[in-house]
Amino acid sequence: MPTKAYAAQSATTPLAPFTIERRDTGAQDVVIDILYCGVCHSDLHTARGEWHGVRFPSVPGHEIVGRVRAVGDKVGRFAPGDIVGVGCMVDSCRECASCNEGLEQYCEGPHSFQGTYNGWNDGSGENTYGGYSASITVDQHFVLKVNHPEESLAAVAPLLCAGVTTWSPLRHWGTGPGKKVGVVGIGGLGHMGIKLARALGAHVVAFTTSTSKVEAAKALGAHEVVVSRNPEEMAAHARSFDFILNTVAASHDLDAFVALLKRDGTMTLVGVPETAHPSPSVGPLIFGRRAIAGSLIGGIAETQEMLDFCAEHNITSDIEMIAMADIDHAYDRMLRSDVKYRFVIDMATL
Amino acid sequence: MPTKAYAAQSATTPLAPFTIERRDTGAQDVVIDILYCGVCHSDLHTARGEWHGVRFPSVPGHEIVGRVRAVGDKVGRFAPGDIVGVGCMVDSCRECASCNEGLEQYCEGPHSFQGTYNGWNDGSGENTYGGYSASITVDQHFVLKVNHPEESLAAVAPLLCAGVTTWSPLRHWGTGPGKKVGVVGIGGLGHMGIKLARALGAHVVAFTTSTSKVEAAKALGAHEVVVSRNPEEMAAHARSFDFILNTVAASHDLDAFVALLKRDGTMTLVGVPETAHPSPSVGPLIFGRRAIAGSLIGGIAETQEMLDFCAEHNITSDIEMIAMADIDHAYDRMLRSDVKYRFVIDMATL
Repeated sequence: MPTKAYAAQSATTPLAPFTIERRDTGAQDVVIDILYCGVCHSDLHTARGEWHGVRFPSVPGHEIVGRVRAVGDKVGRFAPGDIVGVGCMVDSCRECASCNEGLEQYCEGPHSFQGTYNGWNDGSGENTYGGYSASITVDQHFVLKVNHPEESLAAVAPLLCAGVTTWSPLRHWGTGPGKKVGVVGIGGLGHMGIKLARALGAHVVAFTTSTSKVEAAKALGAHEVVVSRNPEEMAAHARSFDFILNTVAASHDLDAFVALLKRDGTMTLVGVPETAHPSPSVGPLIFGRRAIAGSLIGGIAETQEMLDFCAEHNITSDIEMIAMADIDHAYDRMLRSDVKYRFVIDMATL
Repeated sequence: MPTKAYAAQSATTPLAPFTIERRDTGAQDVVIDILYCGVCHSDLHTARGEWHGVRFPSVPGHEIVGRVRAVGDKVGRFAPGDIVGVGCMVDSCRECASCNEGLEQYCEGPHSFQGTYNGWNDGSGENTYGGYSASITVDQHFVLKVNHPEESLAAVAPLLCAGVTTWSPLRHWGTGPGKKVGVVGIGGLGHMGIKLARALGAHVVAFTTSTSKVEAAKALGAHEVVVSRNPEEMAAHARSFDFILNTVAASHDLDAFVALLKRDGTMTLVGVPETAHPSPSVGPLIFGRRAIAGSLIGGIAETQEMLDFCAEHNITSDIEMIAMADIDHAYDRMLRSDVKYRFVIDMATL
């Protein structure tokens, strides 16, 4: 099936119209007409060839919301007309311990999971093309049900990556009533982290380097906002956090946040910095049995759980809608953190 | 009570005989005639003023085994003649959450715990004098029962620090049957980690930089020994460990060990390097939800648990007995890792 898309032909050329081929509909496949696609930093890194192993032409996009056009013979959970989502993964080995536990993002099979774009992590097999396209064909196991009302679907798209990337660690490390949870960074990921942690019942403290973001963070649901450049504000929260979700991908001083963890507290990183963080001091880890951990997106089951939770609690992403042709401009603005908080492409403009 | 001891008068003078004053026996106090005192790296750092806040004269020693000489009016658990132990702590606030949970080593009171030597962590109050002395007077809450046979008491002494420092994280992170556990470094701490992990029922893999230690590590109980300088040997264990206990205090590459953890695995550091470790890569933490944590000695309840476990399983430290006058020579040998695996001072030589 020839399908309209927007692709980077190389790391140095702007994205432009391109026709890709979608596979014939298999028995387990769901064919989805894409309505909206969120714009993730990973899209930018891929399109501009900043990550190892990018294959061109590249069609980014892994925050997909669309309408089912057709389904294969063995598909029972979805029917034409359904509103559905697709996130960062479209396949995995489905046999390993992680896949069996519903944690396909940690697939231990020969290729790890298959990304919605740029194919298998190890570069094997054919390339995959993501959501900057008119439609996508995905095995039903990797398709999510969307129960949000029709008018909020554009703002649902970023839940498929930014939402679950914050949801998964918040849930894994026990965010809920009686817990004090920090969210470092107020961008695409962080703004979702604040909303989700608040809705999960935790006491939420947002950390920002910029006094200009204080009111915005409160509006997102933070009970308190700390300007992390202010040592006195930081010291007031020493040894008080059960969990800190650190969404900042830029290299920064981790010790300042480790010091805010209670005994047995964990700070979990979800961003990979281009240049390493300064080496965290070992003393504060030892003198509090604290941990620094990492977390990667989320599994299919927990993505569905997150979408259902968000529908129930009326949670979506704060977005700015753009036309497909504006994607390179949007990337440039993202690099300046000039977006509140996620761009979403209206695929009707393709 | 004037009491014979061995003290460092300054960071640059060798240890020498010195008379200290032990307090009058309070209602909760246990007066202990010291039989043996293990020699910990902390003793050396303190005696040579390498740590911040060392107070002189300094009497090190926090791996103490002795015989009760007298007890205060309110002491019911101990009687004269009992064999007992004292570890790294002789007091704490006893009111905070950590103290109430039996984790006095993480005391959140105003001074943290009171060290057996060098007093409160924050330098407040009077100095305390450790086990390089004829006797010590300790509140019964911080005194441990020793059930090992009389002939093994010298080799019990290192359990009070090296033993519990490895026991606490091994237990906290669930070492037992069906778990694959790594122990990095085969010194005073590591050799205890191997013995304890093995007795707890785990599959134990020891890591050493030195091929010369392979047979010794097996003799200590390791099922397998990996020479960590050999990338092929390391790669064979990729993503296979539930837990790694890293006892190496020298700066080294943590990534090589993080890569060996399973999804959700933790590597726990118990040594503080003088110069920072190279900053650990964030990617391997994220792509496996792995963690790097720290752990500090152990609480009183778990120290007793460890001593009872060791008595039951016939576990002691491998030691080399020295006379008190040989302490500076022993320090020099420790700096060259020339000891298998712990020096213990025969306090009869004081």
